[in-house]
Amino acid sequence: MSQTTLDAPTATARSLNDKLVAARTASLTLATANADQKNAALEAIAAAVAGGADRILPANELDLANGRENGLSTALQDRLALSAARLTALAEAVREIIGLVDPVGESVRGRVLPNGVRIDQVRVPFGVVGVIYEARPNVTVDIAALALKSGNAVVLRGGSAAENTNAVLVSLIQDALTSVGLPADSVQTIDEFGRDGARDLMQARGLVDVLIPRGSANLINTVVAESKVPVIETGAGVVHVFLDESANEQWAVDIVHNAKVQRPSVCNALETLLVHRDAAARLLPPVLAQLRSSGVSIHADDETRAIFADAVPATEEDWQTEYMSLDLAVKVVADIDEAMEHIRIYSTHHTESIITNDLSNAERFLNEVDSAAVMVNASTRFTDGGEFGFGAEVGISTQKLHARGPMGLPELTSTKWLVRGSGQIRG
Amino acid sequence: MSQTTLDAPTATARSLNDKLVAARTASLTLATANADQKNAALEAIAAAVAGGADRILPANELDLANGRENGLSTALQDRLALSAARLTALAEAVREIIGLVDPVGESVRGRVLPNGVRIDQVRVPFGVVGVIYEARPNVTVDIAALALKSGNAVVLRGGSAAENTNAVLVSLIQDALTSVGLPADSVQTIDEFGRDGARDLMQARGLVDVLIPRGSANLINTVVAESKVPVIETGAGVVHVFLDESANEQWAVDIVHNAKVQRPSVCNALETLLVHRDAAARLLPPVLAQLRSSGVSIHADDETRAIFADAVPATEEDWQTEYMSLDLAVKVVADIDEAMEHIRIYSTHHTESIITNDLSNAERFLNEVDSAAVMVNASTRFTDGGEFGFGAEVGISTQKLHARGPMGLPELTSTKWLVRGSGQIRG
Repeated sequence: MSQTTLDAPTATARSLNDKLVAARTASLTLATANADQKNAALEAIAAAVAGGADRILPANELDLANGRENGLSTALQDRLALSAARLTALAEAVREIIGLVDPVGESVRGRVLPNGVRIDQVRVPFGVVGVIYEARPNVTVDIAALALKSGNAVVLRGGSAAENTNAVLVSLIQDALTSVGLPADSVQTIDEFGRDGARDLMQARGLVDVLIPRGSANLINTVVAESKVPVIETGAGVVHVFLDESANEQWAVDIVHNAKVQRPSVCNALETLLVHRDAAARLLPPVLAQLRSSGVSIHADDETRAIFADAVPATEEDWQTEYMSLDLAVKVVADIDEAMEHIRIYSTHHTESIITNDLSNAERFLNEVDSAAVMVNASTRFTDGGEFGFGAEVGISTQKLHARGPMGLPELTSTKWLVRGSGQIRG
Repeated sequence: MSQTTLDAPTATARSLNDKLVAARTASLTLATANADQKNAALEAIAAAVAGGADRILPANELDLANGRENGLSTALQDRLALSAARLTALAEAVREIIGLVDPVGESVRGRVLPNGVRIDQVRVPFGVVGVIYEARPNVTVDIAALALKSGNAVVLRGGSAAENTNAVLVSLIQDALTSVGLPADSVQTIDEFGRDGARDLMQARGLVDVLIPRGSANLINTVVAESKVPVIETGAGVVHVFLDESANEQWAVDIVHNAKVQRPSVCNALETLLVHRDAAARLLPPVLAQLRSSGVSIHADDETRAIFADAVPATEEDWQTEYMSLDLAVKVVADIDEAMEHIRIYSTHHTESIITNDLSNAERFLNEVDSAAVMVNASTRFTDGGEFGFGAEVGISTQKLHARGPMGLPELTSTKWLVRGSGQIRG
């Protein structure tokens, strides 16, 4: 792949290890910075992004030109492209983080032991957060702002396709940090080290406290497999809706349409619809007709196609696929047990929803389906930090350790125990 | 290494993968078992252990004979050895877990969104927990009981030195599970697969939800480096106490003695003592004399040895060592900054304590030292699930993800979001 590179403003002779050590040092300052200081940095960053079009857009143009030359898909070019309007929106997103409560120092629990020793579990920053992501320069600004607000230094490895844009953005962020007296090394890019940099970042246990991969399933699987640094997996969503025998027809039509069509390219969008056999003739025609009117392609099993002919035959691969497009897999099942068995086999444990009026089936679904979010009579599109009221979202975790489901600022922190005594010893 | 093996009661022709799939299936039943069912299983296990001496002790004798033949150290032989009294104590420990609150289903937080959708974050079991540990058969029973109470299936890989003992214990536990109608596959050993079994367990992402290594630093480092399954690291403790200039002499003497001598072989025991230069002449003679009277060997820097001659010179290695014995490293420092700098370099982030009467130094130490437990005027021996009031302890986490410090039953759970609507879609 050929790459034209700007004379990158952040280029230095520092090794990757030097950069990680510098991040660790910066994290010590950030860990004790108060919310006023961190918010001042965020305001300076927002202003720099909003007012930085003359530096950011030419770098972005260069990345886009490289992308076109290297055959970057139109979808990826769209994700990569910035404009004055997108910069304004990006700055606004940073300003929204200013309004969020600082999680650092929050008391999780505490008590006085019988011997008079007081113990308090409080939130503290992780320290250094590593992020590996693909050609989305908005992630550079978003994740830097979220990490700073939660008191963490951040080391960014973006895709090479956005390298020039990210270099300018990080340079602007570092200037903003310096302007309010916080260390510039709090936010760094390691894009200049290419793939080796990503590999070394994954080995940097002890220097990097947690690694967050954001992007394709392939990227995430690589990081999960290779990283010695603990990983928070923000995974794919093969999301299911099950229409139970007693499902309200209007709710079924509305929820399935909303879950599939409102924004098909995101991880909480519907991918597979399961329908109770005894409700198939009643529900499939209106539900699928509504989808077809919005241009959805139906990939269906034989039973579905016997009821609704405007569909292509589904294969085994369809049940495994996160389309992220206007495609939907549809299958008729005997009952809730077969529905939950299908979900057990094919779900990526992101979000599943049952549409039902049967109380015991609703409770069984909630209790027995093992996903980050399990819903009754609601659109899967609600699995979202903004919708959940977190104000901002770090990503949606599909792993079970540390965080599960939408992650807000508290999920970017660890805890420690503060123990205050007056000479007590253990008996 | 030669090994004599009993005709193991659990020996089957099942492959490791079959066993993990069986554990996953069992976990689905356990996840919805209520506390009464799980407590009945624990009572049956306690009775089987307390009454199982005739099967357990001969197997243990065989392991001990193998151990002596293979040159197992006396310390490890002691850890391996069971007796009627130890079995009674082990059963008692299981019965204590019956009395603990079931963490499954506990509501962490919840609210109603503006659109009327109710969201609740509740605790759920991980699913399948893998444990890799060394020749301690008590861990087999302990961790099985803790995993069951928190609704998890558990796959155990103990050391080959305890293979016969563990096989009998797991067989008794499985019979106890069957007797109360819970799946026998809820608790399984994979000892028969040897080192390959441990390696395969670390690769079993998707079948095993979390892996907990318990044992030597070497074992833990191997698991952390090689595992694709998320790991909870229960690490070593190079634990520090810093005697500040204003430290109360009696507290210093009592806390240092307690932290070093009460149980030197555990991870929360003191390993390095730091002393403020301006207090060294006042504090070191009484503190170190008290330690020497209990047989502690002092490894000290030159400044300490100028004040207290009964010490050997400390080397760089002493600052890095978790002795787990009646040895202590001692160093004089200029002030709290040098003390915290030393801790930053050498601490394993387990527990550190400052003895001081200076309020601002106490607060600085609490805020700036980055360890699982940070203390003022208390013995480091308090970092313990029992002391913190958890009733039982899964281990002490020294990582920052998911759990940090003493882990109780809630730390053996994940969460999921339950979302209840009435037809809502996203606008």
